[in-house]
Amino acid sequence: MHENKILAICLKSYLRDHFCIFGTGVVGRTLGNKLIQLGHRVMMGSRTADNEKALEWADKNGRLALCGTFSDAAEFSNLIINCTKGAITLEVFELAGKEKLKGKTILDLSNPLDFSNGMPPSLYPQWSNTYSLAEAIQDALPQTFIVKSLNMVNCEVMADASRCGGNATMLLCGNHDKAKSDIKEILHEFGWKKTLDLGDIKGARGMEALLPVWLRIWQSTGNGHFAFDIVGI
Amino acid sequence: MHENKILAICLKSYLRDHFCIFGTGVVGRTLGNKLIQLGHRVMMGSRTADNEKALEWADKNGRLALCGTFSDAAEFSNLIINCTKGAITLEVFELAGKEKLKGKTILDLSNPLDFSNGMPPSLYPQWSNTYSLAEAIQDALPQTFIVKSLNMVNCEVMADASRCGGNATMLLCGNHDKAKSDIKEILHEFGWKKTLDLGDIKGARGMEALLPVWLRIWQSTGNGHFAFDIVGI
Repeated sequence: MHENKILAICLKSYLRDHFCIFGTGVVGRTLGNKLIQLGHRVMMGSRTADNEKALEWADKNGRLALCGTFSDAAEFSNLIINCTKGAITLEVFELAGKEKLKGKTILDLSNPLDFSNGMPPSLYPQWSNTYSLAEAIQDALPQTFIVKSLNMVNCEVMADASRCGGNATMLLCGNHDKAKSDIKEILHEFGWKKTLDLGDIKGARGMEALLPVWLRIWQSTGNGHFAFDIVGI
Repeated sequence: MHENKILAICLKSYLRDHFCIFGTGVVGRTLGNKLIQLGHRVMMGSRTADNEKALEWADKNGRLALCGTFSDAAEFSNLIINCTKGAITLEVFELAGKEKLKGKTILDLSNPLDFSNGMPPSLYPQWSNTYSLAEAIQDALPQTFIVKSLNMVNCEVMADASRCGGNATMLLCGNHDKAKSDIKEILHEFGWKKTLDLGDIKGARGMEALLPVWLRIWQSTGNGHFAFDIVGI
């Protein structure tokens, strides 16, 4: 690699916050790859420090990629991207440790999808309609800043809005304006030019409720690389 | 009125199917007005033949507008647009009479919104997530062709897609292809150039679940004249 490029990457990584990704699945790996392409340092957190998927991912991604426990990862960064499955999300934050997450921002992508009755999944009743998973996380971590966004698109579209033409609207919500403003910067880096702030974290009820129609459109068209635009606002 | 215009309206009304609207609220009246502007004959159905709102509406709209009971209206037309509130929709079809609705098409705009705990409404659990109001109507009327559409936009946008720029995607679903094809013609008359068929009536689960995010966008922006576009398909 050309020396100037190395210097530029190093500089960039020291000027920006480090990121941490919770979850080693396809969503976590895709967003981790993207953040590294953008020059960020990323630690991938999982239950154990020797998680094979996380080690393999870190190995592939060179000096900017690290891995560790949820707790290690929470310590590494002020900005956590939650890419774990909805069913285990609250347990994961318990493992990471409430104290370690104090004053930090969580970008929550999770969805309260219940796959126990096969496809398509339904929404867990305890985290939908009059409540949401994002609210449950916020209630469990009152001193952490939860921002819900990106949960209603495929992970390749999350990381690169141009995958669906780049003209969609990305929704976000959360109780803390500074945290939302930080997340908007990441959204812009991922190619989301249009964002719409739906106010406090209760907006996640509607955003998580987009999953059933997302799944149905995917099932009907065979195409997962789409997103919602809000036309007329 | 110029004689040729009268002749044209009469001819058009005889060449097309008559319409019937269930419900005398703002949604029913807005769609009724639009259908009449388009030259259709419309009967507005309600619980009693002397419903004041329906009589007033018919009086204002001249010779193409009629009103009567749900049962009268169901008899008048092969195509019923259900503009009643979700909470009473099943009762309304009971009043109209199962036999009268046999072989007919219902465009269902209703939403399973429970306003009993104030604003914003939640979804009735018995008609959401793993079921929907449209499925409940289809199950109650197995020999009637239910098509779900238009339920996720404001009634002025329903009747005139150009109110939100005209570039959104209108979703629809239902078990019967001929019924969906008839409804697509009406959608085109209302200015919906792009439609997306989500397959059988179970697609209504996702379409009705759009209401929480619709309500939140409306609450956040103060603007109800918007619609969803599906970008990338």
